Amino acid sequence: MSMELVNVNVGLLGCGTVGASLCKLIDEQSEAIAERTGLTLGVALVAVRDVSQSRDVPIDPSLFTDDPNSVIESPDVDVVVEVMGGINPSKELILKALELGKPVVTANKELLATHGDELYSLAKQSEVDLLFEAAVAAAIPIIRPLRESLVGEPITRVMGIVNGTTNFILTKMAEDSMPYADALDEAQRLGYAESDPTADVEGHDAAAKAAIIASLAFGGQVTLGDVHVEGITKITPEDIDFAHRLNHCIKLLAITEKQKIDGEDALCVRVHPSMVPLTHPLATVRESFNAIFVEGDAMGELMFYGRGAGGAPTASAVLGDLIDASCNLKRSNSASIGEFKPMKISPISDLESQYFLEVEVDDQPGVLAQVATVFGEHHVSIRSMEQEGLDSEARLIFITHKAFESDFQAAIKALNELEAVRSVGTVLRVIGID
Amino acid sequence: MSMELVNVNVGLLGCGTVGASLCKLIDEQSEAIAERTGLTLGVALVAVRDVSQSRDVPIDPSLFTDDPNSVIESPDVDVVVEVMGGINPSKELILKALELGKPVVTANKELLATHGDELYSLAKQSEVDLLFEAAVAAAIPIIRPLRESLVGEPITRVMGIVNGTTNFILTKMAEDSMPYADALDEAQRLGYAESDPTADVEGHDAAAKAAIIASLAFGGQVTLGDVHVEGITKITPEDIDFAHRLNHCIKLLAITEKQKIDGEDALCVRVHPSMVPLTHPLATVRESFNAIFVEGDAMGELMFYGRGAGGAPTASAVLGDLIDASCNLKRSNSASIGEFKPMKISPISDLESQYFLEVEVDDQPGVLAQVATVFGEHHVSIRSMEQEGLDSEARLIFITHKAFESDFQAAIKALNELEAVRSVGTVLRVIGID
Repeated sequence: MSMELVNVNVGLLGCGTVGASLCKLIDEQSEAIAERTGLTLGVALVAVRDVSQSRDVPIDPSLFTDDPNSVIESPDVDVVVEVMGGINPSKELILKALELGKPVVTANKELLATHGDELYSLAKQSEVDLLFEAAVAAAIPIIRPLRESLVGEPITRVMGIVNGTTNFILTKMAEDSMPYADALDEAQRLGYAESDPTADVEGHDAAAKAAIIASLAFGGQVTLGDVHVEGITKITPEDIDFAHRLNHCIKLLAITEKQKIDGEDALCVRVHPSMVPLTHPLATVRESFNAIFVEGDAMGELMFYGRGAGGAPTASAVLGDLIDASCNLKRSNSASIGEFKPMKISPISDLESQYFLEVEVDDQPGVLAQVATVFGEHHVSIRSMEQEGLDSEARLIFITHKAFESDFQAAIKALNELEAVRSVGTVLRVIGID
Repeated sequence: MSMELVNVNVGLLGCGTVGASLCKLIDEQSEAIAERTGLTLGVALVAVRDVSQSRDVPIDPSLFTDDPNSVIESPDVDVVVEVMGGINPSKELILKALELGKPVVTANKELLATHGDELYSLAKQSEVDLLFEAAVAAAIPIIRPLRESLVGEPITRVMGIVNGTTNFILTKMAEDSMPYADALDEAQRLGYAESDPTADVEGHDAAAKAAIIASLAFGGQVTLGDVHVEGITKITPEDIDFAHRLNHCIKLLAITEKQKIDGEDALCVRVHPSMVPLTHPLATVRESFNAIFVEGDAMGELMFYGRGAGGAPTASAVLGDLIDASCNLKRSNSASIGEFKPMKISPISDLESQYFLEVEVDDQPGVLAQVATVFGEHHVSIRSMEQEGLDSEARLIFITHKAFESDFQAAIKALNELEAVRSVGTVLRVIGID
């Protein structure tokens, strides 16, 4: 029983780290792919900014062009792979490819988090594949499970470590007791962080992934602007030390969950440093690894773990999508994509969470009672408290029961106004207990 | 933009724990599923052994029958779900459904591990879906990633904790210092182990899953009989204690990897207790959870973690497949299934692994030299050794470098013949270092 081989010609937009890895992977795996799927994949054209630059890829130099439109329009190109990044001209190029009925595979999280809805709609309407497994957590298959395997599952929450740079920094701070700046230096030295690390350390990269995950998990139209974002730059080795003493670690999590607000479904989508119990599977995710934890009523807890960045892992995810799009093309079919409907996004003030809080106070009688009174007045109930003396002052460390963010923030404001309170330290939301 | 709703009628074979959970899940999720996919799923007929038994399911009692053939043949049934288990009559029923062009979703690992090749071939030939996500590790999406996302990835090894019963027992032994028998008692008391636990504790359940995983990961025809199986019944609290002192834990792993034997590709498929470094992600998988760790040249390491058993998690996986099969049906399409070709299965004697070994010897000068000589003569090189005195005897604990199983077993035989050797304890293969 031998299969008829079908040629699929790939038009590649961009040939940086991911594009070059993809060319190599296609070259090395072509025989195995043909055997498994009946497809012979070949790169037909590659759009790059500078054609004259020499590249270490197994591609005939005559196939390079600096005109991406010519790649999309070429009758020799069956499927388009976009790995250029950025919004422009990627958006127009992808829209054009879809209009021409050519399936598109992209790794462009920024674009999808900003204009996903327009792109998904056109793909659906044109019945053409738009696949983007590589846009979230690279090699980790999370998009396809959310689109397909879990489409009937009542998902309640998705939480992920979706940025390798910040996870590496937090791991170094925790395991080697490094201050933030030193851990960032090391991440830059090892190539895990860029020279301008803002997008990673301020949480924007994670926020783009959070928007995409929220759309797929809950079928809502969610964009980058809907995501509440806090980065890791204010985390101190002391915070990590406190967390550890309370059997927790600190992770930058992208979290999306469904809430009822005034009886209406609403989505909360946020990225912030979180206290995670050491027994939670996400606590075991070290260094630059990523993991996404999905909770559902029927299936219970699920976690997907792997390499969330890098040329080869990203190319591996692109190749999976490319094969899928090619198989669908062969069968005149396209992957189903759900409807994304407008959904209420709940503001962070409506969040209900547990909190960790460190407060430095004068070491004198009655201070704890004052602090406790403030919490009580703001409907914040204390779950646990530790006190330690520091010369003339004392440090109070609290973990609260679930409280509303708005109440908690009001309590902090009131604490800051107490005369005996010298400073209120880092506030961290606590996940996984209760 | 509203979708046209398509009715899909499900014929259910079996209504035990999984079947009943599925009926409830379909009932509860029907609106959400219709919104996301345009499908209205309904259970049309249910085959059970005893129609008179009362069941707590949201199904009209008139839809039950004791004739499974009538379910498959009914013109009212579009898709067949088999959750009866066992080889007969499941096999004939599934073959008949596929012949009639009706997609089949099954959770039957035993059947697939024994007759998978015949079933996959008929599905492929008839261009009808045969989906079985629930057959391996229930709610964890592993089958679909292997079939689709990773089809272009050069997978080198898959290792999994795929049996929740044994993982629960090993966790109890490690964390609560329980002997095996007590941990098994507790597993039985909590419903994690059956009254006859043989299939779980002797590794047969894991072996069936290993055969299915090996087929999909490497495209080979692998059946239950190809799997080398060792269970956990001989593991002692002392073994676990030794492992811990060497920064390892003991897990029952299902492992499949590609090897070159005389220049020819061969598969090694095996289930046995293994020493896993505490820093390895599989070491963090506790209690009855399952996890599958996949290694590939391009993507690096990937792990899928979740609930590997239970009515609701299994039903969740079945429902995902059911929706997929229904979507395909609506589009007159079927999921691609790779070719499974005959592959050489390498015997366990050809395995190259690191080993852990505990030997009790007379406490007298020269014994270590004798033992070391035996290892050297059999081409087994020692990576680390610890010695401890016990009255008149001494205990030697070894971890070896990589060695061939045949050489290692020959070394053990020779050790047993040494006069100064009192006993050779548990042999464990060590994974994840080197």
